[in-house]
Amino acid sequence: MNFCNQCGSAVRFEVPEGDNRPRHICNNCSFIHYVNPKVIAGCLPIYEGKVLLCKRAIEPRIGFWTLPAGYMENGESTQNAATRETREEANARVSQLELYTVTSLVPVSQVQLIYLAQLDDLDFSAGDETEEVQLFAEEDIPWDDLAFQTIRNALRFYFEDRKEGVFPMRHIDLETPPRQYVDKSDLPI
Amino acid sequence: MNFCNQCGSAVRFEVPEGDNRPRHICNNCSFIHYVNPKVIAGCLPIYEGKVLLCKRAIEPRIGFWTLPAGYMENGESTQNAATRETREEANARVSQLELYTVTSLVPVSQVQLIYLAQLDDLDFSAGDETEEVQLFAEEDIPWDDLAFQTIRNALRFYFEDRKEGVFPMRHIDLETPPRQYVDKSDLPI
Repeated sequence: MNFCNQCGSAVRFEVPEGDNRPRHICNNCSFIHYVNPKVIAGCLPIYEGKVLLCKRAIEPRIGFWTLPAGYMENGESTQNAATRETREEANARVSQLELYTVTSLVPVSQVQLIYLAQLDDLDFSAGDETEEVQLFAEEDIPWDDLAFQTIRNALRFYFEDRKEGVFPMRHIDLETPPRQYVDKSDLPI
Repeated sequence: MNFCNQCGSAVRFEVPEGDNRPRHICNNCSFIHYVNPKVIAGCLPIYEGKVLLCKRAIEPRIGFWTLPAGYMENGESTQNAATRETREEANARVSQLELYTVTSLVPVSQVQLIYLAQLDDLDFSAGDETEEVQLFAEEDIPWDDLAFQTIRNALRFYFEDRKEGVFPMRHIDLETPPRQYVDKSDLPI
């Protein structure tokens, strides 16, 4: 950040009075520009025991598989964000959302919420940011080709929890930078 | 937002190509300025069955009682944010955090996470944004003088759940603007 988005003047980076961490402060109008973590919301959609995954058509991790998820927008709830992302990325409708994983991705300042959800029907297809949408049985999950560690975590939790039929919410802090690649050898979380 | 914080030029407000909602876009460098919901994290600290509350020394709702909570910062987890806010507002240390309420405050584009927590000791005092810190037994909770509906919800859930000794996470969407005042007559959620 180089300029104030209120008045267009240059900003400095220092600790405001009464604060304890540096912020961008306008040299002209003294507006303080706070930058805070972003929320990512998504779904783990289930249909007759199979999980819906999307192959990414955009960077990062183009060509790898993920759950439908994306940035929460102003003026919506976390559940509505998860439902909207599922509709946008997979043209799919979901219901019975239950909060399943809450992950703090500390190095990238994101909070990711994944909901377990029932996929309503088989009417789905690739959205603009998706190359392909597919339902996977457990034995067909492309573990080597998953886009993100958080997605792998959610899938692993789901298949573990399914044995008992109980799906407790998982709360995870990831303090290390996200891994670029996910190896099969790497499966224990 | 009037100016680009990257190059200082004027911005326009329109739907970017491939997007479906208006954003502030720089007329010069085409940078797209996304604005997303903020996360608020806090604690419901318990000590021998009593709850720690803070009387606010700042607006909004100055002079009203609240739980220690505030904006999550970049580079921290949600739990660390809740712990830090408790330390900053009440000079108090907490442990054994359990996620208890997840509230989407849709009209103000905030997501609030409140953790049940054990207050470690009686060494607490008012921080800079707090006028007074006090432990309250259930019968002494100042229901008429609570700052926010979300705080009242968390306290009501806690005292209800305590009867059974089970504290399930509550997921709430508040679609209407936050109430400025909290009346006793208004107690049913």
